[in-house]
Amino acid sequence: MDVRAERPLAAVTAEIEAVCARAEDAPGTPVVLRLTAASPPGSAVGEHPGWPGPETGIRHVTRWERALRRLERVPAAVVVHAVGACAGPALDLLLVADHRVAAPDLELTLPVHAGRMWPGTLLHRLADQIGTRKARGLLARAPALDAAQALAFGLVDEIDPGADAAGRAASRLAAAQGAELAVRRRLLLDGPSTDIDDALGAHLAACDRELRLRGTAGATASGGTQP
Amino acid sequence: MDVRAERPLAAVTAEIEAVCARAEDAPGTPVVLRLTAASPPGSAVGEHPGWPGPETGIRHVTRWERALRRLERVPAAVVVHAVGACAGPALDLLLVADHRVAAPDLELTLPVHAGRMWPGTLLHRLADQIGTRKARGLLARAPALDAAQALAFGLVDEIDPGADAAGRAASRLAAAQGAELAVRRRLLLDGPSTDIDDALGAHLAACDRELRLRGTAGATASGGTQP
Amino acid sequence: MDVRAERPLAAVTAEIEAVCARAEDAPGTPVVLRLTAASPPGSAVGEHPGWPGPETGIRHVTRWERALRRLERVPAAVVVHAVGACAGPALDLLLVADHRVAAPDLELTLPVHAGRMWPGTLLHRLADQIGTRKARGLLARAPALDAAQALAFGLVDEIDPGADAAGRAASRLAAAQGAELAVRRRLLLDGPSTDIDDALGAHLAACDRELRLRGTAGATASGGTQP
Repeated sequence: MDVRAERPLAAVTAEIEAVCARAEDAPGTPVVLRLTAASPPGSAVGEHPGWPGPETGIRHVTRWERALRRLERVPAAVVVHAVGACAGPALDLLLVADHRVAAPDLELTLPVHAGRMWPGTLLHRLADQIGTRKARGLLARAPALDAAQALAFGLVDEIDPGADAAGRAASRLAAAQGAELAVRRRLLLDGPSTDIDDALGAHLAACDRELRLRGTAGATASGGTQP
Repeated sequence: MDVRAERPLAAVTAEIEAVCARAEDAPGTPVVLRLTAASPPGSAVGEHPGWPGPETGIRHVTRWERALRRLERVPAAVVVHAVGACAGPALDLLLVADHRVAAPDLELTLPVHAGRMWPGTLLHRLADQIGTRKARGLLARAPALDAAQALAFGLVDEIDPGADAAGRAASRLAAAQGAELAVRRRLLLDGPSTDIDDALGAHLAACDRELRLRGTAGATASGGTQP
Repeated sequence: MDVRAERPLAAVTAEIEAVCARAEDAPGTPVVLRLTAASPPGSAVGEHPGWPGPETGIRHVTRWERALRRLERVPAAVVVHAVGACAGPALDLLLVADHRVAAPDLELTLPVHAGRMWPGTLLHRLADQIGTRKARGLLARAPALDAAQALAFGLVDEIDPGADAAGRAASRLAAAQGAELAVRRRLLLDGPSTDIDDALGAHLAACDRELRLRGTAGATASGGTQP
């Protein structure tokens, strides 16, 4: 799926909701998103209206945030391949992905309008993912990052020119973990905001589920002698 | 404003409260603090009494912590320039700043007395800002850090010999973001301790405010045709 | 104390509970754990049954998690020396330690079974300690890390071939901080999941305790004139 930064937010939202619906219907099938913009890399940021663009109301933003949250919980690996100019919804999608491949020509633009960063949940995800110090550093710097800078800030996982690097990462994640990845992802993402004593119950429930899975697999494979 | 580490805590607290009052009265005007100590860099840490110093009671500490928290929320960019020996209140102030410039001769001393780290909110800020692993590393190491070590631990953002680097950073932040910076800062700082679903409302409120700001700016600049 | 990865979980749990009991009876005496497995480094991971091993029920896991949490709170420095093949309970123990020394031959194996990471509290600790981004990176990569990779991910603090590096670190921590370390550690670990305004009371209580300690030390040493 291609996600281009310059399309209206409502259209991108509908597309992501459809992606989520498909992923929920086929747990374990990885989701691979190609993020880019039609405008060639290097075109001035100032020429585009600030994301989320004119004609966008708070109800569009609310729906978009819900779609992002839904994608962050699909029972499958989510891999993005960020190519060329990447901004607006593309950055939001990047931040919910399990694995992020950047093309060498990536030019990531933070959603800054008249000097003000867009205050969506990307601020929350940045704080959780790279720490509040680095996140504040992003607020204070110029809004454009190339692939190497995105890697240094921990926003992407690897730089790879090939179009199939994202596919390989998706296969690797899918082959290994399938739908169970969503359980681990949720425990990880809930970690920082939850006291470990409060989180213990959720971890033990997941461990119990895992022990049962192994028991079933063992029973199927070898009559229960090697769970 | 100069903040010298060896002054009584009550005096530094009063000074910071005055700084906060001015910043709250003139939203958007950046606050630049020069942090240093009178003692030349290289003087033995052990010669000074442990921060917060003798004659300091818990009520002074409480007031100091409140002043720090107030500074962390002023509607303006807070930039510090840390020069030479830097310890005690200077480190606390560094940790609430939006942007931190270190002079090459910075010698940052952690508030360790008889081997025990001072247990103020700097522990909380360290855990949030650089992660609990690096923060625990600071507890286990020698208390003195030079400029390069402070940069490696993520405690400062850049090393610059010039006295005007902090001013330039402040202008950059102020020109761009003004008072709106405080809204983003708060969302970022509240991120790690808040579940993203609980935080969504605050993010949407900020997005709504941002959309209105753009609408107003567009209406003012071009009669509403380019919001 | 040696902790070998291939022993039954119940036996390791009992051993760690005994370690905790001793540490609680002698506050300030550092705990040094040597983590390893009998199998030589380089032996295929796939040859071992997935941790926590067959015959392990959820009640064993619950007891193990409680023992880990108890160790994370002992009133003494906890230092680990991770040598050779290191997996299963060894990784859990590594993640609760204050300071972690890796031998150059360390081969750390994440608890992955049939491609699924074990969902114990190690996921929570990883998210807190190295950030959710790096932690998700661990979920997506091959499960084996050598010493340099473990250092790069922030899982260990230093690489040292000598058997006494862990002892030196323990002495350093113990000499300096003794039982008071546990107070700081708790404030740090509770940091990310607690709003700073809610945490203020705990910090002020610790500051008050520290001021009293200094007052007592001063009174003992010099009749109260140099608190």
